[in-house]
Amino acid sequence: MKARVYITLKKSVLDPQGETVKHALASLGFNSIEEVRMGKYVELNLNTASKKQAEQKVQQMCEQLLANPVIEEFRYEVISR
Amino acid sequence: MKARVYITLKKSVLDPQGETVKHALASLGFNSIEEVRMGKYVELNLNTASKKQAEQKVQQMCEQLLANPVIEEFRYEVISR
Repeated sequence: MKARVYITLKKSVLDPQGETVKHALASLGFNSIEEVRMGKYVELNLNTASKKQAEQKVQQMCEQLLANPVIEEFRYEVISR
Repeated sequence: MKARVYITLKKSVLDPQGETVKHALASLGFNSIEEVRMGKYVELNLNTASKKQAEQKVQQMCEQLLANPVIEEFRYEVISR
């Protein structure tokens, strides 16, 4: 199974990296940008029997290691190969 | 318009961060993982007239700033709000 995990800062958390990227893009002439939010993207290859099992594992991985639940939220998708 | 950009290392490029995450997950008991690849995820809010125009802008942003074309590849999607 292949899993894709998207980790983003919660809306209420300031994102200085995103602000910096926004200003860098503006200085390159991209003036139509309202907001930039930076996140993490994780691709996992899993050796599990079923899609459901893979989804459970990925949920646990996110809760235990990949995401910081205090400031981040995550979503994921599992694709059968 | 809302754009989501996914930036990943090229397949031929070593990903030590992904290897480290893989080992950390293994030490937590997740043994069914074959590979972990870390990437970046960028959410952009754009003030453009059309979806096509937004896609052109995002393509340019990726080429000029967001991704390093030597070692990274990118894909993106633009969603009308």
